[in-house]
Amino acid sequence: MNNDELKRLVRTIPDYPKPGIMFRDVTTLISHGEGLRATINNMAEPFIGKGINAVVGIEARGFILGGAIAEKLGVGFVPVRKKGKLPFDTISQTYELEYGTDELEIHTDSINQSAKVLIVDDLIATGGTLEAAGKLVKQLGGQIVAAAFIVDLPDIGGSKKCEQLGIPCHALMEFEGD
Amino acid sequence: MNNDELKRLVRTIPDYPKPGIMFRDVTTLISHGEGLRATINNMAEPFIGKGINAVVGIEARGFILGGAIAEKLGVGFVPVRKKGKLPFDTISQTYELEYGTDELEIHTDSINQSAKVLIVDDLIATGGTLEAAGKLVKQLGGQIVAAAFIVDLPDIGGSKKCEQLGIPCHALMEFEGD
Repeated sequence: MNNDELKRLVRTIPDYPKPGIMFRDVTTLISHGEGLRATINNMAEPFIGKGINAVVGIEARGFILGGAIAEKLGVGFVPVRKKGKLPFDTISQTYELEYGTDELEIHTDSINQSAKVLIVDDLIATGGTLEAAGKLVKQLGGQIVAAAFIVDLPDIGGSKKCEQLGIPCHALMEFEGD
Repeated sequence: MNNDELKRLVRTIPDYPKPGIMFRDVTTLISHGEGLRATINNMAEPFIGKGINAVVGIEARGFILGGAIAEKLGVGFVPVRKKGKLPFDTISQTYELEYGTDELEIHTDSINQSAKVLIVDDLIATGGTLEAAGKLVKQLGGQIVAAAFIVDLPDIGGSKKCEQLGIPCHALMEFEGD
């Protein structure tokens, strides 16, 4: 399936989680067998043979895609999780939410020095979680080769934020009006 | 890699999350490229050609494995999430924790009537989350073919609990003394 066909499998939920937001729900895409396989293949494809050493996935929807993309690339998967969820030594990074802040963590021994890292999540919106995940990877000495998403929401930042961060971003599709 | 080799990649963290608990940490296994690939292949292998229609993964570590196993089997992935995380219509199921209760949800349109379902998580301990996830799948009319895990902790329930639930459970390895 091509990316236009995949886009038609994404469900839009108006006014979720609050009035005025058009929520792009990828669960309808990934619950479709051919859709899931094409999503994983299309996200992984630009990075085959590019020397990636690790895939970092952001909790929680980034885990669904990241494990499969890591397997496809023949490398390991490293989770970035919400505070308090990882059992070993961690470093953490705070990031801004609309109201207040949240915190992401990574295991200190999860990324080798100079490892080439691909960051994976389902969607890039304001880019706040990507920025925090990127800082964690860099603190451990990793090099961020790129970030891969299903959905880019350019109207609220999206891939433009990637440019500011200096992270090449690949998304399978865009939705306007967010 | 065989399952004995995979078992050596699991890290044990004593006294986490509280004194007396030996926490079996699979992040060291899945951050190993060959280890991740073998884990996914060995978990998926018994179900190839068995007519599975959907893989249900339990938040959050079940997502890392479940997406990849679904892709391997050529079927869709359905998330079972903590309360309040799924954007569309859901049904929910409460389950017991050591202190208090927690709640899991599934989208009402995620499982087709009579679909053959494989449930995936990283570890089976007391079986409380498996029981809750199983009830959700059955409420939607799905048939649970089996559940697949990396780790079975038979001393606190584990695969014995599966028998009580009538769910065939497959785990790659056991750890005693939990």
